[in-house]
Amino acid sequence: MTLTDGLFADDRLGAIMDAPAQLAAMLRVEGALARVQGRMGIIPQAAADAIAHAADNLSPDPRDLALPAARAGIPAQALVGALKDACADHAGWVHFGATSQDIQDSALILQLREALQILHERLLRLDATLAAKAADHADLPIPARTRFQVAAPTTLGAKIAVWRAPLARHGQRLAELRPRLLHVSLYGAAGTGAALAPQMPAIRKALADELDLSAPDIPWHAARDGIVELGGWLGLVTGSLGKMGSDLILLGQSGIGEVAAGTGGGSSTMPQKSNPVAAEALVGIARLNAGAVGTLHQAMVHAQERDGSALAIEWQVLPDMVIRTGAALRLAQDLAETLTPLSCGIGRSFADDRGAMLAEAAGFHLARHMPRAGALRLVAAALADLAADRTETLAGALSRHAPGHDWAHILAPERNTGDAAAQART
Amino acid sequence: MTLTDGLFADDRLGAIMDAPAQLAAMLRVEGALARVQGRMGIIPQAAADAIAHAADNLSPDPRDLALPAARAGIPAQALVGALKDACADHAGWVHFGATSQDIQDSALILQLREALQILHERLLRLDATLAAKAADHADLPIPARTRFQVAAPTTLGAKIAVWRAPLARHGQRLAELRPRLLHVSLYGAAGTGAALAPQMPAIRKALADELDLSAPDIPWHAARDGIVELGGWLGLVTGSLGKMGSDLILLGQSGIGEVAAGTGGGSSTMPQKSNPVAAEALVGIARLNAGAVGTLHQAMVHAQERDGSALAIEWQVLPDMVIRTGAALRLAQDLAETLTPLSCGIGRSFADDRGAMLAEAAGFHLARHMPRAGALRLVAAALADLAADRTETLAGALSRHAPGHDWAHILAPERNTGDAAAQART
Amino acid sequence: MTLTDGLFADDRLGAIMDAPAQLAAMLRVEGALARVQGRMGIIPQAAADAIAHAADNLSPDPRDLALPAARAGIPAQALVGALKDACADHAGWVHFGATSQDIQDSALILQLREALQILHERLLRLDATLAAKAADHADLPIPARTRFQVAAPTTLGAKIAVWRAPLARHGQRLAELRPRLLHVSLYGAAGTGAALAPQMPAIRKALADELDLSAPDIPWHAARDGIVELGGWLGLVTGSLGKMGSDLILLGQSGIGEVAAGTGGGSSTMPQKSNPVAAEALVGIARLNAGAVGTLHQAMVHAQERDGSALAIEWQVLPDMVIRTGAALRLAQDLAETLTPLSCGIGRSFADDRGAMLAEAAGFHLARHMPRAGALRLVAAALADLAADRTETLAGALSRHAPGHDWAHILAPERNTGDAAAQART
Amino acid sequence: MTLTDGLFADDRLGAIMDAPAQLAAMLRVEGALARVQGRMGIIPQAAADAIAHAADNLSPDPRDLALPAARAGIPAQALVGALKDACADHAGWVHFGATSQDIQDSALILQLREALQILHERLLRLDATLAAKAADHADLPIPARTRFQVAAPTTLGAKIAVWRAPLARHGQRLAELRPRLLHVSLYGAAGTGAALAPQMPAIRKALADELDLSAPDIPWHAARDGIVELGGWLGLVTGSLGKMGSDLILLGQSGIGEVAAGTGGGSSTMPQKSNPVAAEALVGIARLNAGAVGTLHQAMVHAQERDGSALAIEWQVLPDMVIRTGAALRLAQDLAETLTPLSCGIGRSFADDRGAMLAEAAGFHLARHMPRAGALRLVAAALADLAADRTETLAGALSRHAPGHDWAHILAPERNTGDAAAQART
Repeated sequence: MTLTDGLFADDRLGAIMDAPAQLAAMLRVEGALARVQGRMGIIPQAAADAIAHAADNLSPDPRDLALPAARAGIPAQALVGALKDACADHAGWVHFGATSQDIQDSALILQLREALQILHERLLRLDATLAAKAADHADLPIPARTRFQVAAPTTLGAKIAVWRAPLARHGQRLAELRPRLLHVSLYGAAGTGAALAPQMPAIRKALADELDLSAPDIPWHAARDGIVELGGWLGLVTGSLGKMGSDLILLGQSGIGEVAAGTGGGSSTMPQKSNPVAAEALVGIARLNAGAVGTLHQAMVHAQERDGSALAIEWQVLPDMVIRTGAALRLAQDLAETLTPLSCGIGRSFADDRGAMLAEAAGFHLARHMPRAGALRLVAAALADLAADRTETLAGALSRHAPGHDWAHILAPERNTGDAAAQART
Repeated sequence: MTLTDGLFADDRLGAIMDAPAQLAAMLRVEGALARVQGRMGIIPQAAADAIAHAADNLSPDPRDLALPAARAGIPAQALVGALKDACADHAGWVHFGATSQDIQDSALILQLREALQILHERLLRLDATLAAKAADHADLPIPARTRFQVAAPTTLGAKIAVWRAPLARHGQRLAELRPRLLHVSLYGAAGTGAALAPQMPAIRKALADELDLSAPDIPWHAARDGIVELGGWLGLVTGSLGKMGSDLILLGQSGIGEVAAGTGGGSSTMPQKSNPVAAEALVGIARLNAGAVGTLHQAMVHAQERDGSALAIEWQVLPDMVIRTGAALRLAQDLAETLTPLSCGIGRSFADDRGAMLAEAAGFHLARHMPRAGALRLVAAALADLAADRTETLAGALSRHAPGHDWAHILAPERNTGDAAAQART
Repeated sequence: MTLTDGLFADDRLGAIMDAPAQLAAMLRVEGALARVQGRMGIIPQAAADAIAHAADNLSPDPRDLALPAARAGIPAQALVGALKDACADHAGWVHFGATSQDIQDSALILQLREALQILHERLLRLDATLAAKAADHADLPIPARTRFQVAAPTTLGAKIAVWRAPLARHGQRLAELRPRLLHVSLYGAAGTGAALAPQMPAIRKALADELDLSAPDIPWHAARDGIVELGGWLGLVTGSLGKMGSDLILLGQSGIGEVAAGTGGGSSTMPQKSNPVAAEALVGIARLNAGAVGTLHQAMVHAQERDGSALAIEWQVLPDMVIRTGAALRLAQDLAETLTPLSCGIGRSFADDRGAMLAEAAGFHLARHMPRAGALRLVAAALADLAADRTETLAGALSRHAPGHDWAHILAPERNTGDAAAQART
Repeated sequence: MTLTDGLFADDRLGAIMDAPAQLAAMLRVEGALARVQGRMGIIPQAAADAIAHAADNLSPDPRDLALPAARAGIPAQALVGALKDACADHAGWVHFGATSQDIQDSALILQLREALQILHERLLRLDATLAAKAADHADLPIPARTRFQVAAPTTLGAKIAVWRAPLARHGQRLAELRPRLLHVSLYGAAGTGAALAPQMPAIRKALADELDLSAPDIPWHAARDGIVELGGWLGLVTGSLGKMGSDLILLGQSGIGEVAAGTGGGSSTMPQKSNPVAAEALVGIARLNAGAVGTLHQAMVHAQERDGSALAIEWQVLPDMVIRTGAALRLAQDLAETLTPLSCGIGRSFADDRGAMLAEAAGFHLARHMPRAGALRLVAAALADLAADRTETLAGALSRHAPGHDWAHILAPERNTGDAAAQART
């Protein structure tokens, strides 16, 4: 553990991806393989029973396997040794016709399936919370900011809708990638299933059924697009949450203070502070996963039928990505639930702006009554007044430059948010 | 241009993604917007006609726009200025209600759609070529190598099938991501469409129809998952090709020489050499795109309604990725077409191995006639003989340790390739 | 070119790193090699003269070399062909005993030396400008912000000093890495110099002298730490500038507006806006170079005596990094020169804070007159008053909770900036 | 822990970088600060004694700090709370005038100093082992391979010299970066030391002396070039080791088998195999650290006076990089010590080549007796004979094409290794 696990780790995801869970998943695969092979008459039924029983009951200490796993260069092989030891006379039928990579990859998929279930639930829950929050604040005017400058009014609900929109797409992507990922592996040493030919495809299919996975015809020992695609998905999810985190940081800055979210951290020395700890963590996780996606893609250059250097990248990168994504969704949920507009800050932002953000709107309004070029000239003149006089407002200046319009009404932020409310209620 | 554009660039993709093409695409969007707005009565028909005409005929020199684009921080804005200049009295109706990002993003999507069309065609063509090659060599025994050691026999066709299998998945991914990518952008300065409310959704829909794109309700100015997903797809494609390149490099090494592919480069000093230039380029491109995917994911942390620092990442990273992917598919096509097994090298590899790669097969065979543990002991003894005597073969040694089997026949590589041929013909 | 070259490219650096410059540098190396070999009697003097003359006068069109470079997989080889063509009868003495990589790497070093000279000049100039600006604003109070919240007062000069401090370290790093980078390469095909043994070390030394480089004994064809270290340095430089850019973006935000810098971009639709284009570009370049550093490090896994896939990474990544670093320094210079504090914004920030950022200072002051725990309790009570009453200030509240101190004086920001002014004048 | 910690982790480095060690280092800094402040009369001596005593004796369970650390967003703050609890009446003087980041960064530097000591020792030891191995095999001919093709003879010692040469440079880099890294941090909340002004610089200097660090005038809370430079150094070290690993993988491939190294892993199914587990791990670690360097560089864009999202990147990336670098050096040491040339494989490589790799040498030899162009023609003719007849050798063919030379002697590999032996003995 590290001292920041409370932010960047996650108990539930951690328990699915950690070493004991990996061992349990590999044992589940070995047990299922034995059961299937016993049922099909590939190995003696007594051996199948013994192996399945041993696999169900073995609970090796990861520390005991560290050395043999390091020597073998692949943990599954160390575990197979332990399982054979536990099966006594039937040891010869353990792992029959499989290669270590088959077991390790199949187990990984079982772990990932479980992790994805949780990530998906969290994604849906976050989506629902954001939907409710967007609806709650669908009509609340707040400045849109482009390139760090106030641009024009939008609503808080519309801002939230922008955070939310990718979540549905992430759900769709997940549904699409699952069938490309949830594959059993059982191809034997060279990927040909030669040891158990010609029955290997049938055994593979049966094992897949036993584990509720699918069984592609072509080995994926060395074609890792499914794994790397998943990594990309994790990066997309945390990237979207990083955008939300970044916005919340900026909305909550001292001097802006338009939105509060999270139960921010105090400071060791500055009693007045409330740091956007969770929002910063979202940004940090987004950047960490972004880097990790790039590293994981390097693992696609996978030599020949199996490449230990490429596998090392997957092993070291993917579990942390999964866990961090779970952490990000958890943190984002807390931020979404506690999100509160601060009318004081929002009011000040509009007041500070003195209507300048409605210059485009004023131009469009005027252009309905006069040639567009002339309209823009009047607005420019009014803006010049604002720049010259810090007490002037755009409505005030326009009342002089273009009298005869109820500028205070026309330029009211709540009348100039276009489709924002509709977007928020989508 | 660089001196290695012949390898890492691509004329066709380059012409789609370069500065003139980007300008043309942006003008196409501006023209379409004017046409749509004229048709809907949003702007005067005469203005619409004039703008559309100007957009169709303008062909600005990218160099002239460099300075204004740099000042604006977004090229579209510089182009809008040029277009207004060309529209004289109608200038005020140019770009009506749109924001620069709308134009730039919509244009990017038009460019990407065209690029994806070519990439997809190349992907399909490569798939077909590899299918034919896999079928041609479906039965040709060749050693499988795991972790850089000879493992067991497979067939060349099965190796090719492993390169090919991801291509169909990439095609599927492309079909799935297209609807998430091929979006028009028309949301105005703050994403609310306020300037043209309440007609903006209808105008957006009409513009989308005009350009044969779709029109999401929620602005994607700052939600860049579609763009980044595409980057991931490009990385997956080149990653798979990088695996093929890596395999071809290794198969063609001096001293292995089992497969030739490509019209390899000569050396300036070593007349005997034939360097795997194209295969190396595939690996290089895979690693370049892998890194680029990671960098591109950083762009998802996109602040507020528009973030010039995040956009900069996309602008600098994505076009090169598209072009490099096109180059990789082109190089891979050449490699696939010229791929030729070298019987001399393959024969030597089997001879050098002296049957050791069939030890697993021998054990499985023997275990049908005796207890498995005893079978494995006999095989181990035979392998020890091989280690002790460099002229010995596994078949020869087993003939002594386990007489009564026709070991030369049993251990013939072509009899021990399991499902390889079937995989090759999938 | 791209439409954003005005921001992310640089004319001077571009002219050093582009294809014609690369060809010129390679020709310079070939010419120098011929001269040295002629002088040493390795090749006939007439040949040396002819080759040197041809190398001085050849100016091949990069486009003509694209195809041969792609076939060879290394541009130098294509150029050697062109040079031989230009040397007629002396062609056999061109490139004598060298390998393509020798020429290409030596030329790269010549290009990099020139580029580093410019980068260093810009670094020194920026350092001087920032030093002057820090001194100018050494005493100007401005809020420090930690974790996006106002923390305590500092001075603008101290902020600038933090941007500036790494620049001197970057200069030091550059001085240290130069001797590890500015190496000639002349080791021949296998790195052993066998073709010209035993004179190769002497020829290499003479060539190094001719080009004012050093000549390591061990070939660096495949040991690329010098190149990758340079990439890291470029990333460090742009990273520091990215921090400056990020700060300027945040300081210039609407609603904060404490510092202006740059001649920011206008908006196509929002006439009131002034976008922080250059500052955003600094952040974008920092992130692009950060990603590029990671990709470049992948090139260190360089197989055997020469690895075309690893070289591809260097070729595609490094020149853009150099150019972008030049662009960043140029943009940062403009920002530094135009940096101006905005008293209105700074004043508002202090006013908005109502002294809360001086809570720590108040506690320290009080603790000199009473037990620390009690002091902190009084400050907490005063802060509670601030939270309850938006018109209250810390000085006002403390005047009630802890009378008898001149709180307005004690908590004046300019009296609470510690060593900031001294840091600014360092 | 993970199941592959035996390869990718390291007990000694892990114990320096783990959570208990981090807590211990932070307590050491707090204790030292109290001692220094007591000695200088900044805090009461009794408080100093009590705090130092508590800091020496506290050993908090990291799990107890997880929640408060997550709430605070910075572990140091949680620890300060625990330390205050342990100091009872003196709690008010704990952490006096410091900010959490001061403590956390100073502690990190103490950890890194210790880690760098070990890494440096391992680097020196590896350098010495490789020097001895290079000397042992300085004269042993072995083919050089460029672009995966046999190029010309070198010696095994020269190959090892290429692995070794960067190590000395890495040692030099480490010596240079240490003074930029081994900095204490004590600047207070806003970096100005205001709480303890004007004594802060003196206290900082005294704390630095106490911890044997240096004390820069300008705060490095937000200027992270020293940390990121270290990350780059770790990436350079593992990159060089990755090159060594890659070479050993390729040298040890089935069918090449020129060099053995490591106590390679067996296979679960293929009894004859010996996998290059450690060499693959070196490549994997190189690629993981390469990616991590890129991610770490993203942390340089550090907002304002403290940025929790940037710090998150450092916290999550750097410790693993340090540990993996330790693992890589340990694995490389084992590989270096066990490295053994395999005369059988080397002999076969030369035999397979039939002298073709000496074509350049033959050309150079002949050119001393005839015009160079003619010489190259004769060599080309001889090479054509080799291509036509698989039993022909270059020496044999040249004996016909260019009689009167003792070609077997002239083209003996050991006579054509140039400076290789001298390089090996450098």
